[in-house]
Amino acid sequence: MSAGFPPLRHELQGIEPYGAPQLSREQAPVQLNVNENPYGPSPEAAADIARAVGEAAVSLNRYPDREFVELRTALAAYIDTSGGSGTTPEMVWAANGSNEVMLQLLQAFGGPGRVALSFAPTYSMYPEYARDTMTEWVAGHRAEDFSLDLDTARELVLERRPSVVLLPSPNNPTGTALPPEAVTMLCEAAASYEPGGLVVVDEAYGEFRRAGTPSALELLPRHRNLVVTRTMSKAFALAGARLGYLAADPAICDAIRVVRLPYHLSAVTQATALAALRHAPELLGRVDDLRAERDATVAWLREQGFEVADSDANFVLFGRFADRHAVWQGLVDRGVLIRETGPDGWLRVSVGTPDEMAAFRQALVDTVPQTSEREPA
Amino acid sequence: MSAGFPPLRHELQGIEPYGAPQLSREQAPVQLNVNENPYGPSPEAAADIARAVGEAAVSLNRYPDREFVELRTALAAYIDTSGGSGTTPEMVWAANGSNEVMLQLLQAFGGPGRVALSFAPTYSMYPEYARDTMTEWVAGHRAEDFSLDLDTARELVLERRPSVVLLPSPNNPTGTALPPEAVTMLCEAAASYEPGGLVVVDEAYGEFRRAGTPSALELLPRHRNLVVTRTMSKAFALAGARLGYLAADPAICDAIRVVRLPYHLSAVTQATALAALRHAPELLGRVDDLRAERDATVAWLREQGFEVADSDANFVLFGRFADRHAVWQGLVDRGVLIRETGPDGWLRVSVGTPDEMAAFRQALVDTVPQTSEREPA
Repeated sequence: MSAGFPPLRHELQGIEPYGAPQLSREQAPVQLNVNENPYGPSPEAAADIARAVGEAAVSLNRYPDREFVELRTALAAYIDTSGGSGTTPEMVWAANGSNEVMLQLLQAFGGPGRVALSFAPTYSMYPEYARDTMTEWVAGHRAEDFSLDLDTARELVLERRPSVVLLPSPNNPTGTALPPEAVTMLCEAAASYEPGGLVVVDEAYGEFRRAGTPSALELLPRHRNLVVTRTMSKAFALAGARLGYLAADPAICDAIRVVRLPYHLSAVTQATALAALRHAPELLGRVDDLRAERDATVAWLREQGFEVADSDANFVLFGRFADRHAVWQGLVDRGVLIRETGPDGWLRVSVGTPDEMAAFRQALVDTVPQTSEREPA
Repeated sequence: MSAGFPPLRHELQGIEPYGAPQLSREQAPVQLNVNENPYGPSPEAAADIARAVGEAAVSLNRYPDREFVELRTALAAYIDTSGGSGTTPEMVWAANGSNEVMLQLLQAFGGPGRVALSFAPTYSMYPEYARDTMTEWVAGHRAEDFSLDLDTARELVLERRPSVVLLPSPNNPTGTALPPEAVTMLCEAAASYEPGGLVVVDEAYGEFRRAGTPSALELLPRHRNLVVTRTMSKAFALAGARLGYLAADPAICDAIRVVRLPYHLSAVTQATALAALRHAPELLGRVDDLRAERDATVAWLREQGFEVADSDANFVLFGRFADRHAVWQGLVDRGVLIRETGPDGWLRVSVGTPDEMAAFRQALVDTVPQTSEREPA
């Protein structure tokens, strides 16, 4: 074999694996880089998860329920407390993180000769899902304030006829939520050509939306090509359990079964998620605190003269910096890890505890003492 | 949208999701259809798994270790007790079941314009991994006794120049192990063209191999294009935990990182697998019993006049029946669920407990009372 060992596909060569740069807690005690919920499960919830897994463990020699009926039932009930209504288990699908949900959607509905479309700046994993499923990736653009110009968006959909439109709401990394009329318009556009496209509204951060911002779950009864994805990683404080899910027409869930790997959700994952759902009020109990902290962070950053994107999520995109990497590094040097992502000149900070946000504010003030280091407006 | 809703890829339409037909324990109390280990973890092992998950649960708000270093280290140590030597954590990769490991291998090393090759009859998921990664699927053929004719196999490899050769050993559903010279010959063949192919020896059932059958792990130091996959689902009695892994050159593991979904192994899965590995001697403790029961099953079936494939696995392929479905149904009617799989005329039975195998034998004798129902030789 040649020096090209191993024989990796040509288009993957030289690509770095996806993932936020990581530092240990010793290197950076304040970690505000991957939009985690800073509040872990209570000892009671953790003990209940352990108890549920212990019960599942005695029959781990058996394969798990391939259709995870109990979990789908529990997720359907939760969805109806969080913007949905009349959700049945057949309308729910789940996988190991919403990224596996997205991959399965593109495996089933994307692929060679088909197009997946989103609007930049947006979640940086989307093009990777497209790449890994051989789906053509088309990125339209958001307006200067990161909102979607509806006419332009519709035109692009009608022109490129995507099989899958990926619409994060709130958007990552900008925090921008979509108005319901955008979802409706794009669902109608994607239903107007053959064989039609799915509109996937990625509400990974949906529970953090501001008062008055509706969930796309409310629109499900009206658009059968609408898919709303969620995750237990963020508001639910369960990133370590890797449980993403979606609500959609049962025919969509059924179709995904063709491409899912059999038994993709372990008995341990199912037991963990079920136990966590029993503790939903507690696990979600800090969402309001985090929304308040988010709004305070936006306000403070604006007071300091920074540009800040409106946020319906548990993170804030702010800028703009002539050398954002220098600012990122300055914060790291002061023990605060945030994320260098999004459009050039911007940085993203996750919303942590009040102490963590105080540390962030102090580190930012120390790193960027004068407005002169900021990008001229 | 047309009647073709949802817009599933054309080549997936009408395909049934992969999976063995399932019946409840009420319908079929003796389940010998998916090659599970009939012996579950002990109460001590289950409690230790629960304890480990409970410890992980308090920080489930954080993402898991993306590189699962502790688990890779523990798996490397286990591999060296099971045929390997000098295995380092960098030589180990793991995912949610060995089917995810296989999919990742084809995502990285297969794909459009590339070929994956195996020899039929073989594991029925392989063509699905190829389909889902747009890899061309080529199936050579095994000899009448399900062994591999080495010259024919090598010729096919040299002719089709596959990027990935999939060689289950023992083979599913036939139980046939590969001799080391077959692995060596195919590794050399797959290294003789550009950019070369990987030879993946799928040892999902490797721990059940008969005395004198070596593991391909022993050949790893000699062939850098050799990949040996394993699973904790079978001998390890941990099908419900979904943990598959491989040992290979570190460059191969590193390349897979480009296509893996970030955080694909949950903190709960990592904790469960680590706890199970601490109980390896106990969890593997029934392997010898199962091998003896397997050998006794093979001998009994032959005494009854059936054709039986030699088996190094925890299942036995036997036949041949003019109407195998009728035999399968007859067993189901008597409460015994086996698998209608493999070449026409054959059936596969998993090795269960002595009581389960007695029930299988009785049901088979009752279902097939006369040799006249068997296929004429």
